[in-house]
Amino acid sequence: MIVVLKPKVSRKQETEVLKEIRRLGYKPHVIRGVERIVIGAIGDERTHQSLEVLTTWPQVEQVMPVQKRFKLVNREAHPDNSVITVRGNLIGGKKFQVMAGPCSVESETQLLTTAEAVQKAGATILRGGAFKPRTSPYEFQGLGEKGLKLLAKARRATGLAIITELLSEAHVDLVAEYTDIIQIGARNAQNFQLLIAAARTGKPILLKRGLSMKVEEWLLAGEYVLANGNSNLMFCERGIRTFETYTRNTLDLSTIPIVKKESHLPIVIDPSQGCGRADLVIASCKGAVAMGADALLIEVHPHPAEAWSDGAQQVSLGQFAQLMEELKPFIAAAGRE
Amino acid sequence: MIVVLKPKVSRKQETEVLKEIRRLGYKPHVIRGVERIVIGAIGDERTHQSLEVLTTWPQVEQVMPVQKRFKLVNREAHPDNSVITVRGNLIGGKKFQVMAGPCSVESETQLLTTAEAVQKAGATILRGGAFKPRTSPYEFQGLGEKGLKLLAKARRATGLAIITELLSEAHVDLVAEYTDIIQIGARNAQNFQLLIAAARTGKPILLKRGLSMKVEEWLLAGEYVLANGNSNLMFCERGIRTFETYTRNTLDLSTIPIVKKESHLPIVIDPSQGCGRADLVIASCKGAVAMGADALLIEVHPHPAEAWSDGAQQVSLGQFAQLMEELKPFIAAAGRE
Amino acid sequence: MIVVLKPKVSRKQETEVLKEIRRLGYKPHVIRGVERIVIGAIGDERTHQSLEVLTTWPQVEQVMPVQKRFKLVNREAHPDNSVITVRGNLIGGKKFQVMAGPCSVESETQLLTTAEAVQKAGATILRGGAFKPRTSPYEFQGLGEKGLKLLAKARRATGLAIITELLSEAHVDLVAEYTDIIQIGARNAQNFQLLIAAARTGKPILLKRGLSMKVEEWLLAGEYVLANGNSNLMFCERGIRTFETYTRNTLDLSTIPIVKKESHLPIVIDPSQGCGRADLVIASCKGAVAMGADALLIEVHPHPAEAWSDGAQQVSLGQFAQLMEELKPFIAAAGRE
Amino acid sequence: MIVVLKPKVSRKQETEVLKEIRRLGYKPHVIRGVERIVIGAIGDERTHQSLEVLTTWPQVEQVMPVQKRFKLVNREAHPDNSVITVRGNLIGGKKFQVMAGPCSVESETQLLTTAEAVQKAGATILRGGAFKPRTSPYEFQGLGEKGLKLLAKARRATGLAIITELLSEAHVDLVAEYTDIIQIGARNAQNFQLLIAAARTGKPILLKRGLSMKVEEWLLAGEYVLANGNSNLMFCERGIRTFETYTRNTLDLSTIPIVKKESHLPIVIDPSQGCGRADLVIASCKGAVAMGADALLIEVHPHPAEAWSDGAQQVSLGQFAQLMEELKPFIAAAGRE
Repeated sequence: MIVVLKPKVSRKQETEVLKEIRRLGYKPHVIRGVERIVIGAIGDERTHQSLEVLTTWPQVEQVMPVQKRFKLVNREAHPDNSVITVRGNLIGGKKFQVMAGPCSVESETQLLTTAEAVQKAGATILRGGAFKPRTSPYEFQGLGEKGLKLLAKARRATGLAIITELLSEAHVDLVAEYTDIIQIGARNAQNFQLLIAAARTGKPILLKRGLSMKVEEWLLAGEYVLANGNSNLMFCERGIRTFETYTRNTLDLSTIPIVKKESHLPIVIDPSQGCGRADLVIASCKGAVAMGADALLIEVHPHPAEAWSDGAQQVSLGQFAQLMEELKPFIAAAGRE
Repeated sequence: MIVVLKPKVSRKQETEVLKEIRRLGYKPHVIRGVERIVIGAIGDERTHQSLEVLTTWPQVEQVMPVQKRFKLVNREAHPDNSVITVRGNLIGGKKFQVMAGPCSVESETQLLTTAEAVQKAGATILRGGAFKPRTSPYEFQGLGEKGLKLLAKARRATGLAIITELLSEAHVDLVAEYTDIIQIGARNAQNFQLLIAAARTGKPILLKRGLSMKVEEWLLAGEYVLANGNSNLMFCERGIRTFETYTRNTLDLSTIPIVKKESHLPIVIDPSQGCGRADLVIASCKGAVAMGADALLIEVHPHPAEAWSDGAQQVSLGQFAQLMEELKPFIAAAGRE
Repeated sequence: MIVVLKPKVSRKQETEVLKEIRRLGYKPHVIRGVERIVIGAIGDERTHQSLEVLTTWPQVEQVMPVQKRFKLVNREAHPDNSVITVRGNLIGGKKFQVMAGPCSVESETQLLTTAEAVQKAGATILRGGAFKPRTSPYEFQGLGEKGLKLLAKARRATGLAIITELLSEAHVDLVAEYTDIIQIGARNAQNFQLLIAAARTGKPILLKRGLSMKVEEWLLAGEYVLANGNSNLMFCERGIRTFETYTRNTLDLSTIPIVKKESHLPIVIDPSQGCGRADLVIASCKGAVAMGADALLIEVHPHPAEAWSDGAQQVSLGQFAQLMEELKPFIAAAGRE
Repeated sequence: MIVVLKPKVSRKQETEVLKEIRRLGYKPHVIRGVERIVIGAIGDERTHQSLEVLTTWPQVEQVMPVQKRFKLVNREAHPDNSVITVRGNLIGGKKFQVMAGPCSVESETQLLTTAEAVQKAGATILRGGAFKPRTSPYEFQGLGEKGLKLLAKARRATGLAIITELLSEAHVDLVAEYTDIIQIGARNAQNFQLLIAAARTGKPILLKRGLSMKVEEWLLAGEYVLANGNSNLMFCERGIRTFETYTRNTLDLSTIPIVKKESHLPIVIDPSQGCGRADLVIASCKGAVAMGADALLIEVHPHPAEAWSDGAQQVSLGQFAQLMEELKPFIAAAGRE
């Protein structure tokens, strides 16, 4: 860590800081600059206590970490891309994957119709919410276990793998019994107890970025999964909260090259939540493919205007088929299959 | 709800929309404007499905809700201020309350020293984290049950009431057994299953605002508590995430008059998390008192520079005593005791 | 406009509002809802005073505009794409355009070397700052007129068109004399007097989005240009300010389909300012092409590490040539040339 | 500056960096850490070129500045508070000052009525916009010179000093002829040419914080004023742009202790722009006083609902008189007069 002292500190004040740095297990190294004294504190920042507490001292101006705080998700620890296998589908490899399906599972007809249509258009994984985190307690909260059973039925009928959201530690065993990928939603992205419980099932996990999560925090939330023995992790960007109100969120596609650079794990883009508007989803999917995403997660509904949740952002079956067709040249241009 | 059609829609397109509005249980009322047709859809928005799905229709430009989505926390439903009783201390009444204590419970000496000092300075409630949500899995995660037992010991020694954070559904019974107020942290503010579990204990709940939570979302998260049978709720502003990096968060003191206007429930300010710097805490406390807050939640530590978590934002025992002294004229000016 | 009254207003209070709506030139139309009275105010919102002042009235809950505030930049007013001609190059047509060059003009060698290299790689327009808006008064402020002369020299040598920034009303004639496109920077995006002065030169204008400008505000800033008689306007997204600190700004690529939908004018993407890091520029360019941008504006420098300003975000000549090569399949996939 | 190298760089790569640091005028100082090499570069960051360009080098991980970039506005350069004199009124001294008046000057009656009322209630400075920066070109743009003449008339009638906004370099002489304080608005806070022109008039300047301006950028914009020979500068917080939509902006009152700590110049709070709602202005004023602001800038209008601009945020004459009365105990509690 780097500790910057204020201008004109006394020798005594400097000595106190050096003593504290040593007490916390670091070896201090003093640089006398033009106006300020800068102290390099040598030691592993991840095994020692942070020196940031020193900012409470009157003679200290700032403390800056040097190391990255994440280890297991870090590409430095694993230079090759990690590839995750989900019922025979590889995520993070050469083949571009599409996960598609309704925001909420509503009925057998709705789900099976969608599953067959998205499979025919080229998707390999079926999404669908059985437990729904809703802003208001008066909104539809999902079909629960009945929804999970319908997902399993759709899997049997089509062979598609399943992804569904886990939003309570109390549901871990139940959800893990049915799903192929456990989705952790944006509102629970720093619900660390849920992450630990999900990790311990051993199932592949898709971790959405929280609404106002910095990249480092997102990677550290992923670190909770790997540190609990599960390396089958995918990151999923779904839009961050900004001042802009035209779109529901601001889809941050720069996370694709960033996650690829910082981590070895796959990156998935969810443009439905990001845009909050079906009419922007198609363009965003093209951008995600071009920028190197490993997969897309798209909300598709047979009749978006009748959806029980988030209808405004779901694309119809016809729009989805057309989208998959339009994506082909971009997938080829990106060197994917 | 208000449904605005695009310019130049055909009569047929208009009729389709009217039909759908009726199908969803609303009574449409057409206004023909200069450029656009506007439809007022009459019906209770909280008991019918939202019309926002209509934004997927090509002829619809926008859909605007008219009603407020929160009911039980709404001041319209309960015009008088709600007052919450915690071991004989009233929060939301004429007396201004101060909750103070360390970020994390670290040891018996640390906690008891702090408890006695904050009590002497005028605090009535002792805060202290036993379970800590930490950004990195490699940081100190709290003493757990041992921390809860130390809090109980400090309560016996001083008579102070206790507030501590709940961060897992699996800990609900344990935490409820020891604490007087259950704190829900910013990262769990939309962990609805945790809110429901906490509500059902019947204990008073302090709900922090999430890092990027709009006021309406915060009130709706509170609605989950009241809708599950617990009306002992306090809202707590602790700073939101913005582009500014000088402070850790931006403390939004305007939430004080806003929560007072929209809701009947008490509002508490946590300036420690908000500022992330002890040297700004004092000024923020004065502002909070002047703007009408019901209580403060302040991090206090006997030796901030040695704290096991968030040392930079904790004030020392001496600073706290001085702060309490300096607050007095502002509490009087605000018409509180 | 839509005026929503509070619950339980008296008949007298309602009548006062109706009277004021009529006084301001609108025709009121009352809808009695379940809890609230909603008033549709019929009249052209762009020629009458806004009714938003009514929110100061105690009986009024909210006032919502219905019309879009921008007219001339609105696609409703001009359904076809506008194409802008700059020295024979068409922007907004079938051909994809690339504007490239250094952040600042530093010397004849630096500029001519860059101009020849970017031309060879396929760029048609040369960018280069002669007047630089710098956060600190102690940073390099640009070569001024000398820089403009060097740009003109590079144009004569290569035939490339020129784009450079205008940042003072006092420089309008000077800059217009030399440049082919006037760039208005993000910090001046709502400097309306500068926009008016620039518009009146008749030169094509590239208007960058301000750091925290909503789409509607950006379109309205463009409206200042068209309303002052100049329809040769391009919008340029360069990243918005968010909480994320990994990148300098968050490049909002969703503005491409949004501007295409709302306006008839071309949209240009500047990934250099957006990412603030050369290593993310290549991926962002691919995303911009795939999502339908009309042109790119890229910072290129012969020796980025020696640049006098913003070196961290400039790509080298070799990187630029490679980028142009890698873009080809995406340009083809997007149906452009 | 601090330069952090990536893990595992070769000796050759390290030597290249050291050579470049020396070439740019700094003296490098190497610290070999556990995983990374950290280089302290000794030299005055304000007189040498920034080393941030090194982030383009493949072997460099990050570059961190150590010094503060602002000098003349820095409290280190001037430990005592600066006090600014405006027609005999001291801003930044023991007396708390209030600037009040309409958003826009509309007519002689409107202005004189307001001036007399705010003077009677205790204000010493009259605000009023003659040139208005408006989001849309179709909105009222101010009375221009006629407005300035009315302000001068109000000054003669009441003895109040005058503050009005300057928004064009072309108006500098005109505005300076009439006003006592030149206001630079949020949208022009980084219009550096305007700041320089305003500074050179020698008039006191009130610099509003830009909508998404970091504290450091705001102080550096102020540095442009002092570096151009004018030390009569006040900073004015008016709310920043965040994700919250309940209020027009988020008023960041923590800027009061921050500006007091970092700078010697006065800090003024404008709660009208910040809240965008008259009903929140009163509480915000109390908070600003309690937190140590030197002055308030408040929008007051005889008939807010009839105002030609921003009516929703202006308080009436009666509300203003009551506000001034309610502020008294807080001003006393803050140790001001």
